[in-house]
Amino acid sequence: MTVDVVAYDTVHPGDTSDLETKLSRIDPAQIRRLALLVKTEGNSDLNDFSREYALQSARLALQRYGGIKLLDRSSFLFSTGCEGAMTPFGYLFVDTIEPAGTPLSPGSALAIGCATSRSLRPEEIGTRSHADLTAEAVRAAMEDARVGREDVALAIIKTPVASLMPTASRSVRNRRITSGFSKAVGALGAGIALGEVEPSRVVEDAFDSDHSLHARRAMVFSGAEIDRVEVLLLGNRPGAPGGLTIETGFLVDLLDAGGIRRTLAGAGCTLADGVVANPERVAAMLLKVGASANGAVRGNRTTIKSSHIDMDKHVRAAVSGIVGSILGTTKSFISANTVHQAPPGGGICACIVRKG
Amino acid sequence: MTVDVVAYDTVHPGDTSDLETKLSRIDPAQIRRLALLVKTEGNSDLNDFSREYALQSARLALQRYGGIKLLDRSSFLFSTGCEGAMTPFGYLFVDTIEPAGTPLSPGSALAIGCATSRSLRPEEIGTRSHADLTAEAVRAAMEDARVGREDVALAIIKTPVASLMPTASRSVRNRRITSGFSKAVGALGAGIALGEVEPSRVVEDAFDSDHSLHARRAMVFSGAEIDRVEVLLLGNRPGAPGGLTIETGFLVDLLDAGGIRRTLAGAGCTLADGVVANPERVAAMLLKVGASANGAVRGNRTTIKSSHIDMDKHVRAAVSGIVGSILGTTKSFISANTVHQAPPGGGICACIVRKG
Amino acid sequence: MTVDVVAYDTVHPGDTSDLETKLSRIDPAQIRRLALLVKTEGNSDLNDFSREYALQSARLALQRYGGIKLLDRSSFLFSTGCEGAMTPFGYLFVDTIEPAGTPLSPGSALAIGCATSRSLRPEEIGTRSHADLTAEAVRAAMEDARVGREDVALAIIKTPVASLMPTASRSVRNRRITSGFSKAVGALGAGIALGEVEPSRVVEDAFDSDHSLHARRAMVFSGAEIDRVEVLLLGNRPGAPGGLTIETGFLVDLLDAGGIRRTLAGAGCTLADGVVANPERVAAMLLKVGASANGAVRGNRTTIKSSHIDMDKHVRAAVSGIVGSILGTTKSFISANTVHQAPPGGGICACIVRKG
Amino acid sequence: MTVDVVAYDTVHPGDTSDLETKLSRIDPAQIRRLALLVKTEGNSDLNDFSREYALQSARLALQRYGGIKLLDRSSFLFSTGCEGAMTPFGYLFVDTIEPAGTPLSPGSALAIGCATSRSLRPEEIGTRSHADLTAEAVRAAMEDARVGREDVALAIIKTPVASLMPTASRSVRNRRITSGFSKAVGALGAGIALGEVEPSRVVEDAFDSDHSLHARRAMVFSGAEIDRVEVLLLGNRPGAPGGLTIETGFLVDLLDAGGIRRTLAGAGCTLADGVVANPERVAAMLLKVGASANGAVRGNRTTIKSSHIDMDKHVRAAVSGIVGSILGTTKSFISANTVHQAPPGGGICACIVRKG
Repeated sequence: MTVDVVAYDTVHPGDTSDLETKLSRIDPAQIRRLALLVKTEGNSDLNDFSREYALQSARLALQRYGGIKLLDRSSFLFSTGCEGAMTPFGYLFVDTIEPAGTPLSPGSALAIGCATSRSLRPEEIGTRSHADLTAEAVRAAMEDARVGREDVALAIIKTPVASLMPTASRSVRNRRITSGFSKAVGALGAGIALGEVEPSRVVEDAFDSDHSLHARRAMVFSGAEIDRVEVLLLGNRPGAPGGLTIETGFLVDLLDAGGIRRTLAGAGCTLADGVVANPERVAAMLLKVGASANGAVRGNRTTIKSSHIDMDKHVRAAVSGIVGSILGTTKSFISANTVHQAPPGGGICACIVRKG
Repeated sequence: MTVDVVAYDTVHPGDTSDLETKLSRIDPAQIRRLALLVKTEGNSDLNDFSREYALQSARLALQRYGGIKLLDRSSFLFSTGCEGAMTPFGYLFVDTIEPAGTPLSPGSALAIGCATSRSLRPEEIGTRSHADLTAEAVRAAMEDARVGREDVALAIIKTPVASLMPTASRSVRNRRITSGFSKAVGALGAGIALGEVEPSRVVEDAFDSDHSLHARRAMVFSGAEIDRVEVLLLGNRPGAPGGLTIETGFLVDLLDAGGIRRTLAGAGCTLADGVVANPERVAAMLLKVGASANGAVRGNRTTIKSSHIDMDKHVRAAVSGIVGSILGTTKSFISANTVHQAPPGGGICACIVRKG
Repeated sequence: MTVDVVAYDTVHPGDTSDLETKLSRIDPAQIRRLALLVKTEGNSDLNDFSREYALQSARLALQRYGGIKLLDRSSFLFSTGCEGAMTPFGYLFVDTIEPAGTPLSPGSALAIGCATSRSLRPEEIGTRSHADLTAEAVRAAMEDARVGREDVALAIIKTPVASLMPTASRSVRNRRITSGFSKAVGALGAGIALGEVEPSRVVEDAFDSDHSLHARRAMVFSGAEIDRVEVLLLGNRPGAPGGLTIETGFLVDLLDAGGIRRTLAGAGCTLADGVVANPERVAAMLLKVGASANGAVRGNRTTIKSSHIDMDKHVRAAVSGIVGSILGTTKSFISANTVHQAPPGGGICACIVRKG
Repeated sequence: MTVDVVAYDTVHPGDTSDLETKLSRIDPAQIRRLALLVKTEGNSDLNDFSREYALQSARLALQRYGGIKLLDRSSFLFSTGCEGAMTPFGYLFVDTIEPAGTPLSPGSALAIGCATSRSLRPEEIGTRSHADLTAEAVRAAMEDARVGREDVALAIIKTPVASLMPTASRSVRNRRITSGFSKAVGALGAGIALGEVEPSRVVEDAFDSDHSLHARRAMVFSGAEIDRVEVLLLGNRPGAPGGLTIETGFLVDLLDAGGIRRTLAGAGCTLADGVVANPERVAAMLLKVGASANGAVRGNRTTIKSSHIDMDKHVRAAVSGIVGSILGTTKSFISANTVHQAPPGGGICACIVRKG
């Protein structure tokens, strides 16, 4: 259970050549868990299929590399939207089995765990049951990673939405189960599992409404293509082998570069004049930042919620500049919409760093 | 000739209420020059009329305030595009006449000058003559500001484009006079006047083509509504009264936060952990940043030149995050496209700071 | 009270030159009512200000032409969105006073009437009271036009929406008062006044929800800039002078060219091979067509409700092709969203024709 | 060599379920040629990958159905853009081998032929050689279909463009090889082969410039993913078995419904009041329509070339309304940009009809 993380390039969403190069160095039989955390470059709108295309292409590549059985040990989180100073790319996480008898390491190191819930019935989506199934899947992923609740750094969650396909019959009830609403439910479920949200407050009236409730170590995504909750959990496991460690931090608002810098410093990076002095130690950087209720930032109005461009694109592009100028690279995994994942307008970041 | 700069808010492009409040404190008879440098919030596309609407509204407001004669002493630079962490707002520059006999100040202070060229004939647009008329107007603006070439901090230029109106007859020749091409010509003209571009190299084949040529202290905008070149020049005049000073700096690329920080430091601001410690001293911040030839940043591909969103929007949004996180505000004047105003992919910034 | 209608061109939303030419032929003192029904060409999104710009420009032009008092006798309906085969243009309606003692005409002719409600309080918007005030204004406009309920051809209604300005405080209650919801309420109010909707069924739960309810002779628009309901009513008044007549018709769905043709034939036009043979008799053509609940047309899915382009743009562009190919012109007033103005997916059209 | 055409539905670009159902009725061993002519529903912009996704999915489906060898006998033309009243769907063309000794049919019937050129070197793209290779491929496709030049109804051509991938090194020369330019060259090549364009006039200066040159029976598409010219040719072969016939016609401009109606009538359909009375006989309808140089239609300006929406989308949406209202369906293959495929602003249509 040694986890490594490597970034791979894509020339377009269907391109898996660099992924295959990176995989070719690893014996598929040694892989306990494989996860792809990928940013694709479509328009992020209802008629964007870059994510589905990338996912189909990646599955074909993994199947060629490790056979169809490897797919069962693999987890996929593809997120669309690479605005601003952002490179479309992927992180390949590989958790390999070490030889029997390998002694425990002295400190702790990055561990990953995967789990999925059972399939949700359409009428369950958006209910408390949806939140509970998310919580259960997070707990299962903790077990898979063999990390305790206090050692979890980040639960990355994908949660189903009611289909928008014109052929689907949809009750009035389900009409409200948009992508944002599904993320809200998933985040509260994760918050229950991580001990960050009081379970009794997770009632349907609070979903996407009582924004005082939020998890602190969850990034939640939604997908119309799935009918179950999928979890990729990252933490630091005491005694784990491997040279990586993960640190989680927070942004109070869209311009909070200080929150990013403190997280990097906490993970062991050196900062000088606001910039990371040893960027080669950063193996991965993940951010998710939201917009405030009216789109204002530090009291001033913006066009984040009042333009032809979706608010998430404004946020991702602005964050890409901030984190890019700190790390000196356009390769970070940046996402938006932090409903119940941070206080309104706030954000979360996690960096994986090579130990000194 | 004391220059003051104040930011004013707009609730929408046609809103002039805060501008009128700010103006109400000044006697229009004392105004030698007035300039509005404004960011409006339209979609920046061919069917965006927010700039025209804002300009019409501002002219009506100025006329109500100071009569139609004030318009002749006024200069307008309205630029569309407020993506990311950016507030639509305006800077009001007012250059007032001090009482006769006011002694010279010991140091130097911000001075502004305005000038316009004669009208260009349609067939002149995009030619060397267009560049020469720009150079002439920059020199006239220097004279108006009473600053020498070495004391110029920034020439803000608006330059005409050939109309895209379907009713206009356009020769094949003029078809290439797009907004970007017009900016290119204007920038080279400014570079001649400022001694930054060798006049003999300003030939038509070099326009928007030989990107080794560039001015260093020019920000160039284009407008289909004008038929002449308009210049608003900013500099530090020795002996000028007033408490403001301006500093110009450069960004080597889209992520060069260091370039912004050095400019702020050069103007007298204090930086701590990459952030301005005394932001109340910053009266105005102007930036213009470009994209590299293929859109890549630090060797990695981006979607800046390969998405449904125009490249300038990607750039402005990313820069808004960087400068916003340094200054702690969304109120900066951020623009894109630095053709012949910086090396490809680079940028220019200018900050106006209250003297310590 | 002789009504004339003339189309005028615009080179851009702020252009009033052709409007002024058309007005110059009329003595402003003879004008009882003036109305502008205009399509502008912005992006129709939250950051589109072409309508506000056009309105401000038209008001300035009318003021120059007929003084500020003429504005009180004038009505403005500016609608954004000119996709497909559509020309941005305006219809100028002028209702002039005939000399005393003019005898009644033998038949009936086009008449117009204008009315506005009192200002709505923010908390009234979207309530039954909003619908009742609309009904009242429609009745007042009928009186102004001196037409009975059975002679009304079309009530064109503008209705307020709750502001989206970030600075506005908005209760959760008002958050749902979107443009579409405001149109829904206005349409039901018009339906009450026109005897097409049973008043007892106009309850808040039915708004934008019980789509079996709909007016038959209303086109409803919304505007964030107004706080009252404005009505421009068109009908045929027995005995009225003037050479124009208006006919109303219906489209069962987006492809129902037959509905348009029947309306034209009903108004006295001749059709041959599906095309109007005497298009010079058509003085004005107005259409409003909607999308079905899931966007499907005749049982087949479309991208109308599942693309990056707003559904109204898909609809307007498709309708522009249909009506344009029937009339042989791109100058028709085409609008979308028929919530409570037609059965779901259906439409309404009205043509004003010169009498034979 | 009996050709059948059937439309199949897609729930999303990757959906091949209905294609597979349709294929399941056919023995793959009997298939001489198979062609898919498909409209996909992405945003049609640089970051649209719906076409690539659909193509990958269709190839996987064909491989499952008929083995990898069937792919060699298959031809793919996927075109993005389903605006307005248009359904994303595909036409499946199957050319099956009849038993030996089948006698000739008395009349003529639909025949298809496929051919591809050799690979083009990057520097050949956009040159006269590119046009000649296209002409050669069209001739080879005629041979494959066994139709003479006079019996060709339509040459559907896919032609390569210079890659826009940021990693590609591009000479200044190739910078101009956009999608539109590539179509221009392909159309002139087709025109040479079909005897519609004088070969001596096909010089590089004329490409996308001398718009008096145009083929009459070609629809040309471009693709960044190919490096050769691909041709799918449709014609009526005397003696061919099968119950289908194809008719080609022309639109003089965007609103020319008469051109569509005449084509349908020529193919044997009955029209009443401008509408097809026997739509069940129409097996396939293909259209390609362009915009005039300044976007005006019948002398009036439109926003086709001056909005945030690409001109092709305006055109497709408007045409979808026209043809949809004639055929009573949203299932037609509608495309835009007719550079050198029709006079400027004009169009071409082809309908495949079941013989009476």
